[in-house]
Amino acid sequence: MNDTSAYQPYVEASWGLMNHWYPALFSHELGDDGLVGLQIAGVPILLRRLGGNVHALRDECVHRGVKLSLQPTCLTADTVTCWYHGFTYRLADGQLSAIAVSPEDPLIGTVGLQTYPVVERNGLVYVFVGDADYGAPPPLEADLPPLVDRSHRHWSPHVLDDDAVVLGIRRRVQSNWRLGCENGFDPGHIFIHRNTTLVRVQGWNLPLGMRPVGQTAVSWLENDGDGPHGVRNEFGTDAYLPVNEHEELGLEPLGDGVPAGSRTSMWMPCCLQVENFPQRGLAQFEFYVPVDDQTHDYWELIVAHCPTDADRARFQRDYDDIWEPLGIYGFNDCDIFAREAMEPFYRHGGGFPAEVLCATDVMTVAWRQLVSRHNRGVARPGRPVAPDPVPPPSYRPAS
Amino acid sequence: MNDTSAYQPYVEASWGLMNHWYPALFSHELGDDGLVGLQIAGVPILLRRLGGNVHALRDECVHRGVKLSLQPTCLTADTVTCWYHGFTYRLADGQLSAIAVSPEDPLIGTVGLQTYPVVERNGLVYVFVGDADYGAPPPLEADLPPLVDRSHRHWSPHVLDDDAVVLGIRRRVQSNWRLGCENGFDPGHIFIHRNTTLVRVQGWNLPLGMRPVGQTAVSWLENDGDGPHGVRNEFGTDAYLPVNEHEELGLEPLGDGVPAGSRTSMWMPCCLQVENFPQRGLAQFEFYVPVDDQTHDYWELIVAHCPTDADRARFQRDYDDIWEPLGIYGFNDCDIFAREAMEPFYRHGGGFPAEVLCATDVMTVAWRQLVSRHNRGVARPGRPVAPDPVPPPSYRPAS
Amino acid sequence: MNDTSAYQPYVEASWGLMNHWYPALFSHELGDDGLVGLQIAGVPILLRRLGGNVHALRDECVHRGVKLSLQPTCLTADTVTCWYHGFTYRLADGQLSAIAVSPEDPLIGTVGLQTYPVVERNGLVYVFVGDADYGAPPPLEADLPPLVDRSHRHWSPHVLDDDAVVLGIRRRVQSNWRLGCENGFDPGHIFIHRNTTLVRVQGWNLPLGMRPVGQTAVSWLENDGDGPHGVRNEFGTDAYLPVNEHEELGLEPLGDGVPAGSRTSMWMPCCLQVENFPQRGLAQFEFYVPVDDQTHDYWELIVAHCPTDADRARFQRDYDDIWEPLGIYGFNDCDIFAREAMEPFYRHGGGFPAEVLCATDVMTVAWRQLVSRHNRGVARPGRPVAPDPVPPPSYRPAS
Repeated sequence: MNDTSAYQPYVEASWGLMNHWYPALFSHELGDDGLVGLQIAGVPILLRRLGGNVHALRDECVHRGVKLSLQPTCLTADTVTCWYHGFTYRLADGQLSAIAVSPEDPLIGTVGLQTYPVVERNGLVYVFVGDADYGAPPPLEADLPPLVDRSHRHWSPHVLDDDAVVLGIRRRVQSNWRLGCENGFDPGHIFIHRNTTLVRVQGWNLPLGMRPVGQTAVSWLENDGDGPHGVRNEFGTDAYLPVNEHEELGLEPLGDGVPAGSRTSMWMPCCLQVENFPQRGLAQFEFYVPVDDQTHDYWELIVAHCPTDADRARFQRDYDDIWEPLGIYGFNDCDIFAREAMEPFYRHGGGFPAEVLCATDVMTVAWRQLVSRHNRGVARPGRPVAPDPVPPPSYRPAS
Repeated sequence: MNDTSAYQPYVEASWGLMNHWYPALFSHELGDDGLVGLQIAGVPILLRRLGGNVHALRDECVHRGVKLSLQPTCLTADTVTCWYHGFTYRLADGQLSAIAVSPEDPLIGTVGLQTYPVVERNGLVYVFVGDADYGAPPPLEADLPPLVDRSHRHWSPHVLDDDAVVLGIRRRVQSNWRLGCENGFDPGHIFIHRNTTLVRVQGWNLPLGMRPVGQTAVSWLENDGDGPHGVRNEFGTDAYLPVNEHEELGLEPLGDGVPAGSRTSMWMPCCLQVENFPQRGLAQFEFYVPVDDQTHDYWELIVAHCPTDADRARFQRDYDDIWEPLGIYGFNDCDIFAREAMEPFYRHGGGFPAEVLCATDVMTVAWRQLVSRHNRGVARPGRPVAPDPVPPPSYRPAS
Repeated sequence: MNDTSAYQPYVEASWGLMNHWYPALFSHELGDDGLVGLQIAGVPILLRRLGGNVHALRDECVHRGVKLSLQPTCLTADTVTCWYHGFTYRLADGQLSAIAVSPEDPLIGTVGLQTYPVVERNGLVYVFVGDADYGAPPPLEADLPPLVDRSHRHWSPHVLDDDAVVLGIRRRVQSNWRLGCENGFDPGHIFIHRNTTLVRVQGWNLPLGMRPVGQTAVSWLENDGDGPHGVRNEFGTDAYLPVNEHEELGLEPLGDGVPAGSRTSMWMPCCLQVENFPQRGLAQFEFYVPVDDQTHDYWELIVAHCPTDADRARFQRDYDDIWEPLGIYGFNDCDIFAREAMEPFYRHGGGFPAEVLCATDVMTVAWRQLVSRHNRGVARPGRPVAPDPVPPPSYRPAS
């Protein structure tokens, strides 16, 4: 049995982390006057768009606990009403402002639904999933990779960049969110990708794995404030040696080059940044958003810098014809397979004391320690949480 | 967290109440010489009709615990035999009278299956689901609403009336039985019905809700003996004010009249009586019969006074063309939706301390207190109980 | 409540027995160069055929716990490699010999997967499912019925005989493995078979049941060494009286003869031998191999003595046309029905204290005591075990 005390809070975070920003929806999923219910880290959340702004409330009527989103009912511009007894809540602060069936009820004005801060940027709606007594939320930027100057040699587009176009999908995966993070960030897992079409048509020499050499292979990217906090694999430096072949196992290089400037970093609460991937000048962002303790929503986003309409049109075409079929699906399907294959072993946390880590797992341990040190709270749903019925498990933007 | 101590037995009655009468089958479901297995409050029950009489035994062979109803085997007129080893039980008292594979077994005559009293009235088979050591059962009338004189201004037909015709269906609902009772009896829940076709074609002005005013809104209808024990919403008196509109929420009256003489009462163990509904002179009876702790069988019955064959034919036609499609399904589908929506919140009792009740819930609290005071026992299945495989979830009488 | 202390280890063996031989696959299911994953007694096992030999390893990579069999990967002749990070294990001893993504990893040579002894005989692959610290395994013969001399009056073919041909199927049954053993060995359970086509076309007078008389009805067949250990119903002796009719229940004999020399014995860990069945000169062997605590793999094998090719061809024809449709399916389907009917009552062991045994159950009690006395360990999976996805639930040899 392993000693897991160096990252015990991480081991206990089956349901995810509280008091962090998470992507919740693609903007196009929440139309004008739209209302959608979803679940993050066991918290039922209702999103309501009105006049361009998106509001988030707890999706559970205080009265009898039903989800308001099961039958969206909006009777006035600034409220949302429960379909069951007409409990009506103000979008602005969640306060109970009226009860249709009991107009002068003493409850009115004394209770309410928790609200959650929302930010919408470049086609994504982010929600701050906070405890009721958590103070002012940090900015969204504290829970995403930091922006770097365009002149930096590793620059690649960022989901918050002004001219960024963000295209991608979200899928429901049957594994704990931590297995998503650990698979995505793992420099050894590329072994499962080596025969994918994406790798082969580009003639990449995707290594079998990346061997960390010394202590500088993984950079701790911590911040004095709320964040961002991340760990990065320093590919392309002396700290990592690519394993290009394995004679004993008969594994030879399959191609010539590797994507230049590509490296991976993992950011709290659950964001993987892959710079200069799937080709130089693009970036892949992934999120592994906890739904419940056995399920996460897998966000796969490709980001491009598109200052002109022509750039946007070209990127959309490339995304549709190349990156989505060969990357998002063909390449990343292998990752979903791996995470779901790990799930039974790690179910209810059983795998952490039983696993046997190897040399390339130094970054996994670093990530676990980072989360244990900087998380703003561990999610602990008090009641059994039902599966999130809406929205359907997979979305992609209309092209 | 709420203090639930005022109705703690109710909170613990996830599996239902013991030592009460429950409807078990429509008479037409149990043909001559028929045998059917079902489950009430976690108790597996076998019903056997013979010579016009219906017998009920525990549907679990004492030997290896299989359900006799899985392969009905009746070798003599007054016994039922287990298909597995031929354990043969007397219908009259459940005693083990023979074992086909072991004719002189010392067990014979020393053990048996519990039997349950049965009464059949107006097309319904009722079973008294009692503990083995419970004494003489009270009459069926103790567990149904009381009969009232036909001259009473609120008179409407009763399932036990001499000339009553009872038509309806039974459906399996995925919620605890208590959520069925509470939804059906709730004077506020009519908010979910206001746009149904039944309401609109009749031009009713179904209120948004009914506001209780003072302590007389809910009558406690208790009995010195075994029962009946019920609580009634005194609609049509000064104790209830209909909420016809809600200006702030833009909700206006939709019709003109309301069904005259309509009021609702809830009777132990699980019967809702809606007098003069779905129209004056008819009555709707509903039962929310516990199957297990997450499922109930929902009985929806319309009762008419039909002294002549012509009356019966007319009622059958109205039932087929109007009351079943518009009422039983169209109107009450909303109730099933509401109960199943509440289920995750109340699963394993978690909702009782967490809910926030409002003014119209005084009748819900009264019902919980009534059950806590007068129940004859709380069901506590000792072993895990398998889902009831037969009969299929929905039945309706052949028309 | 019964006192189960006379066979407490049996009551605790929900997941099966450890350190015993079990049939794992039909030989034809594991082709040249084949690799298959399966689960026995909660243990995930990978079988790999190479150069005529079959190797068995724990099917769970030490690293992140995934099943190697999910994506079979064999890069060298004497190893199996995990598809995820290339952890490579020697077939001979399970030692970790290489890691594709981390060639000089300090783990190499220090850890490994447990291996399991394998024996292949007459078309069946047997695996010894042992604890890691269990010493040298006993021979396969210790976990099968003993061979008897061909001159013995009860002789019938044995799965280990030199000229034996073994034909049959395997099916997944939704019941605990002990219910399989107890149903198969029960002299009273033949009541469920009496109306099957197999019985009727042969004109057998299958008794209603077999009544044990005195203490010699069940023979304890124990061995000073590791085994075999069994219990046998001494049908055909004075110790058993067939129950041919039951006047009170109107049950009469249906035929004339009975299969001569037929008797049943139950062998640890889970083998039923039915000598001279389904006809004189044949034998039926059954195994009830635990998968998890609610599921077993049911092996149904008919064995014939076939010294010549003509004998083999004739047996194959009879098997295809008669024994499989009428016996394996028609006759034994009733047994599966009975076991699955018992499962809810015995779930989590609840039935053992609650059952009421009768006179014919002396052999059931003898079997429980035998297992309690001679088992080499009770399976206790430390972690939740996922359902075994491969192979599919039912196989039969190509005819």
